[in-house]
Amino acid sequence: MSTCPYASRRGFLGGIAAGMAAVGTAHATTAPAEDAGTEPFYGPHQGGIATPPPAHTYFATFDITTDKRDDVRDLLKRWTQAAANLSQGKPALPTDSGEALGMAPSRLTINFGIGPGLFTQDGKDRFGLAAHRPAALVDLPVFVGDQLQPARTGGDLCIQACANDAQVAFHAVRQLAAAAYDTAKLRWAQSGFLPHVTGQTVRNLMGFRDGSSNPDPKNPHDMQTVVWAGDEGPAWMRGGTYLVARRIRIALEHWDRTPVAFQEATVGRSKIVGAPIGGHAEFDAANFAATDADGNPVIAENAHVRLAAAANNGGARIFRRGYSYNDGLNFTTERWPPWRQGMEYDAGLLFMAYQRDPRTGFIKIFERMAKFDMLNQFVTHTGSGIFACPPGCEQGGFIGQGLFA
Amino acid sequence: MSTCPYASRRGFLGGIAAGMAAVGTAHATTAPAEDAGTEPFYGPHQGGIATPPPAHTYFATFDITTDKRDDVRDLLKRWTQAAANLSQGKPALPTDSGEALGMAPSRLTINFGIGPGLFTQDGKDRFGLAAHRPAALVDLPVFVGDQLQPARTGGDLCIQACANDAQVAFHAVRQLAAAAYDTAKLRWAQSGFLPHVTGQTVRNLMGFRDGSSNPDPKNPHDMQTVVWAGDEGPAWMRGGTYLVARRIRIALEHWDRTPVAFQEATVGRSKIVGAPIGGHAEFDAANFAATDADGNPVIAENAHVRLAAAANNGGARIFRRGYSYNDGLNFTTERWPPWRQGMEYDAGLLFMAYQRDPRTGFIKIFERMAKFDMLNQFVTHTGSGIFACPPGCEQGGFIGQGLFA
Repeated sequence: MSTCPYASRRGFLGGIAAGMAAVGTAHATTAPAEDAGTEPFYGPHQGGIATPPPAHTYFATFDITTDKRDDVRDLLKRWTQAAANLSQGKPALPTDSGEALGMAPSRLTINFGIGPGLFTQDGKDRFGLAAHRPAALVDLPVFVGDQLQPARTGGDLCIQACANDAQVAFHAVRQLAAAAYDTAKLRWAQSGFLPHVTGQTVRNLMGFRDGSSNPDPKNPHDMQTVVWAGDEGPAWMRGGTYLVARRIRIALEHWDRTPVAFQEATVGRSKIVGAPIGGHAEFDAANFAATDADGNPVIAENAHVRLAAAANNGGARIFRRGYSYNDGLNFTTERWPPWRQGMEYDAGLLFMAYQRDPRTGFIKIFERMAKFDMLNQFVTHTGSGIFACPPGCEQGGFIGQGLFA
Repeated sequence: MSTCPYASRRGFLGGIAAGMAAVGTAHATTAPAEDAGTEPFYGPHQGGIATPPPAHTYFATFDITTDKRDDVRDLLKRWTQAAANLSQGKPALPTDSGEALGMAPSRLTINFGIGPGLFTQDGKDRFGLAAHRPAALVDLPVFVGDQLQPARTGGDLCIQACANDAQVAFHAVRQLAAAAYDTAKLRWAQSGFLPHVTGQTVRNLMGFRDGSSNPDPKNPHDMQTVVWAGDEGPAWMRGGTYLVARRIRIALEHWDRTPVAFQEATVGRSKIVGAPIGGHAEFDAANFAATDADGNPVIAENAHVRLAAAANNGGARIFRRGYSYNDGLNFTTERWPPWRQGMEYDAGLLFMAYQRDPRTGFIKIFERMAKFDMLNQFVTHTGSGIFACPPGCEQGGFIGQGLFA
């Protein structure tokens, strides 16, 4: 294979000025270079978690195919070095696939997670690491209503790349997957996007603001309390976090034919402003005790915000950093009137929740929501994964190093 | 259903200043407002064809479910009005789904096409329009190597929305699909993207520049010769064009393990610069007659550029305006060494070719390419459609009006 004759994607541009002389805008997209800057790769926490989300993501999980512990450690070393390079707009491999040549880093972040299968598979301690499995890295229980597809569930390792360009995000994971050949193979993957808005909470495909009550990633106390693992678990996870990923299909056809007033009652917020029902502004506190003239709760007993609120879950909180997904159409048998069959949107939410401990985070909150949330009639969980995301590392180290010490 | 209390997506922002007071960047994506301007909807040609491509697309085809000609005409009227509004950043329906609230038009273009099935279905003249079917709107032949999936092929009508924001593009088609309820239903759909680059030809997922020898959309002679229909067909199509859409999966794993020198021989261009083999710069003319010291052609007999070139197709040209697509993974049985089975990328190219007559455009060129192109060992056509895209219209008219006159 050819080796890479360029030191960086941007740098390579200078070298081919002759070849570009005749170029015209006729052949180019006219999207301007947007926020194309660089996010740091090294640090106490992995990037792409507290980092404000860029507009695109590509998330992938892997099955480990080696039975040698050193192969896994070497893969994590290789991935770390490659990810550090990619995040600076440099190629990762001598055989870089090339589709991000000449492109800016586009705020690329890349982070890694470790699934339960690295520790234990079919009851077997695969790599002599079972004793180091964090108690918080439980196998997710089966939730009421789960419709998980095996081809979109699980994984021994995961990578999430986020960037302000869909091609840059996919390019990153593609290089890392190629670098894993003979050690790990892709299991499932999902691309996602967010709308380009500034100074406001993004809307998901249901048309509602999503994340209004999220912990503030710029508030160290919030992040330490809710997200970053501390002394309660193994030392190799201190400063890391636990990711629960869920691929949630939304019945958009059904939702779009539902009156907005019912949508609002279901969510427990107004659609346009995003205020809790009974409130006026998006960040007003929800008043769960308020009742109307008939003594009925203003925010319904099974409204999404009520069931999700920390106040109603013994203080349990998670940090959500989801993306919408859009995979075209597939054949669906509707479970609502007029009970049609046909091609419907395969679109929804790549839900990504980070927390210090899933047992007191996502699992605690979602076990009740899965049973009672009014929103459940519009959403179906079709994919799932749980991963321990180790802390960040400094140059010369690698992600997950503590586990292999 | 609630009616829409805002006159435009941007306008609505002013009205909810109170609700936004507490907003912080913590909850927002940090992608800046990119090229968020407005493209004209009305004009002699439909938008989104000669228009420089924004970064995202959502393409969808529909089956007509009514048997009344007036229903189809009314749908095209409704779609035209809604599309004109959407392209200006205004909601399309009283029941707008809301996810583009507060967002800029993002250069949204929306165009429409009419498939063979509107004229003839199972040999039947469905709507009394068969006599108006353009001779150029043929049923596509079966090409060598076709692996078309019925669920990704055909359609009586099509819509393509393009925008600099994935959410805005999908939002547009979603409103139009909702406006078609009881008249037409979605058949297949595909989202796509392009990298954000300026002043250079975009690279597709094979890492090569794609479109270097495309007709120049700013050159009226090129466009009139290659793209826009003239007097040779029915009057209702004058100033329109014909779209051939192909969903082309690329075996990226196989491609990535192929030496760059072989990739370049396959394409017939250098990877980094994009010059024809034997040339120096991207827009150098390919020298198909050149031979090496052994008398072998410098550009291989079955190289992609040789088989695609107008010079080798009796002057036949098409205008390509494709997008990459990325639908995660699915199970694949490899047809190349080491003959693995497993999850592989379902990613590739949503190929979109416009031409004055597909018989002398795509069909003429591709019949030979399908048999001989070296690139065929890396690509599989899994979806397909052909559509007559009527000319544009003025305010008060509607797309396809001439057909119903």
